[in-house]
Amino acid sequence: MSSGDVRPKVVICRDLGPAMPLLMDRTDIEVVLWPENRGCERAWLLENIKGAAGVLVLLPDTVNAELLEAAGPSLRVVSTMSVGYEHIDMPLMAQRKIRVGYTPDVLTEAVADLSVMLALMAGRNDGAAYTLVKDGDWPKFNWSPFTFCGPQLSTTASSPTRTVGFLGFGRIAQATLTRLVPFGITHCIYSGSPRAAPDTARDAALRAKHTLAALERVDIDRLARESDVLFVLTPGGDETYHLVDAAFLRKMKPLSVLVNTSRGTVVDSDALATALREKWIWGAGLDVVEGEPKIGKDHPLAKEPRCVIVPHIGSATFQTRMDMATRAIDNLVGGVFGTEMPAELGGGRKL
Amino acid sequence: MSSGDVRPKVVICRDLGPAMPLLMDRTDIEVVLWPENRGCERAWLLENIKGAAGVLVLLPDTVNAELLEAAGPSLRVVSTMSVGYEHIDMPLMAQRKIRVGYTPDVLTEAVADLSVMLALMAGRNDGAAYTLVKDGDWPKFNWSPFTFCGPQLSTTASSPTRTVGFLGFGRIAQATLTRLVPFGITHCIYSGSPRAAPDTARDAALRAKHTLAALERVDIDRLARESDVLFVLTPGGDETYHLVDAAFLRKMKPLSVLVNTSRGTVVDSDALATALREKWIWGAGLDVVEGEPKIGKDHPLAKEPRCVIVPHIGSATFQTRMDMATRAIDNLVGGVFGTEMPAELGGGRKL
Repeated sequence: MSSGDVRPKVVICRDLGPAMPLLMDRTDIEVVLWPENRGCERAWLLENIKGAAGVLVLLPDTVNAELLEAAGPSLRVVSTMSVGYEHIDMPLMAQRKIRVGYTPDVLTEAVADLSVMLALMAGRNDGAAYTLVKDGDWPKFNWSPFTFCGPQLSTTASSPTRTVGFLGFGRIAQATLTRLVPFGITHCIYSGSPRAAPDTARDAALRAKHTLAALERVDIDRLARESDVLFVLTPGGDETYHLVDAAFLRKMKPLSVLVNTSRGTVVDSDALATALREKWIWGAGLDVVEGEPKIGKDHPLAKEPRCVIVPHIGSATFQTRMDMATRAIDNLVGGVFGTEMPAELGGGRKL
Repeated sequence: MSSGDVRPKVVICRDLGPAMPLLMDRTDIEVVLWPENRGCERAWLLENIKGAAGVLVLLPDTVNAELLEAAGPSLRVVSTMSVGYEHIDMPLMAQRKIRVGYTPDVLTEAVADLSVMLALMAGRNDGAAYTLVKDGDWPKFNWSPFTFCGPQLSTTASSPTRTVGFLGFGRIAQATLTRLVPFGITHCIYSGSPRAAPDTARDAALRAKHTLAALERVDIDRLARESDVLFVLTPGGDETYHLVDAAFLRKMKPLSVLVNTSRGTVVDSDALATALREKWIWGAGLDVVEGEPKIGKDHPLAKEPRCVIVPHIGSATFQTRMDMATRAIDNLVGGVFGTEMPAELGGGRKL
């Protein structure tokens, strides 16, 4: 950090743990790292970004005009360790010709794993079952043949069909479907962005590959009415805000399960709490909740026994977070030296 | 229940809920049902079984000489709504020529579903993650890039192999393997009963069907050393008592996960608690615990944050419990009238 250092400076907004040697072992860059084990302070960032060639940010770090002013004309790249880029002013980046990297794709498998886990947990009353043991109440538990029973994800000889629905049918949804096939899923329906053209050839190929009775794009009304398990796997933002609202939930089957592993804003929390309380649907498994992380004990969903909530851990595995950190670092270095970035936003890539 | 009733009497030790009409709608049998929503009292059973042709029992109802004495020579069939039959004195049944029915097979899919759920939960720190939200601590949660991370069940481009191990490789184990294939599992190893001959043709066929790099029967030492996720799916009893003990657990990988959805006695609870506390293994997911249901808050496993325990709900789905109840009733009626029983123990069937 001496003033005579001619190496390009990069600012890292968070300790990346086991991925840090990928940065620290380099001799061709000067690394300035936020030293504490908590989110980066704005004042520190504004001070340290002066003269930087690159910055590695996370979702809480807003990248706006203020930050670019503080950085000055040296800034060539913003690399975020996330799939989302709501925190980055993309038109401004284009205008200033600052390259932007992100970390898509690498978290597909981890989020698909969690989606299956939450579907199983919500159907199998896992919240109540886990809590019974945790609270020490198993010894006095009054077993009966149907206690703790819920709808079964897999098919059986006497219950041979299951329809799985996807609100949004991108990479993670398709990876989730792939995992569900050996559970005996027979029908897959999905709703996609109204702007995206149907892809009947892709759908026919997927249906054949998974030997499903049907794989079909449907309107949102049919999606609500026919899904036994509904996965919300669509981007957030205005277009999908509260797509799952009271009207949608009222159409769902009484034994159906809702899973949201994408963005909290897609689901109206109050409507979902009512749906669970009044048994319009059977259960819910949520990795994301609107307004997170400000979800206290008194949040209407936290109080519902058939709502399983985990704190946005969709991509939280060693393998995936290491891949995300590695990709964010590779994007940063590529941007700093004007070479290829493994996952660049804008440019040749459609947003 | 009039003394002039000439219909055969059957005693039902527990209200079977939605399956009861299958019994009550019959006009050719007299049904005597334990009237309370708790386990059947022994005194009531001994009193009411007098002169019965059949009895439908559950795991807590011991079928021994005392019960047969009380029943008298009219008793033709004992039907248990369970896969296990530890509670039935089988040699005595053979000696008295009383037929015994049970409910195998129908719960395979439900238990395989739960096995996958517990593997995911144990790997993904679900106990701590779920508890964080439930306790209202999400708002003050100090996120960092590797918090809540655990080993990923699915493979990724940078982590392309996974070995899944099975202690016991029967129907449920194979149904679990089938579900894990699309998670990217590459290797499957298992240990079976030393008395069972290897079935290399079956194994080769399974390996080809699932396009695995390997599917191999191994000794218990290799099973411990090589499994990333180990599923205990073997019968209970003396032969398998504490097969998973301290010596076994010490050989396992530090990031491995243990799942038990068969019988609690196979795993030494104290050794497992030590293994979790001292990080010999990463986590555990248990549907069964030795000594259940007497597992209080102070049980060494209940205190381990990386141990997820649910209260023996492996077969607890509406579909499967209904199938089990239906099969138990069909076995009972078949035995009473001397016709076929869908699942009869002994006789032509090997035990």
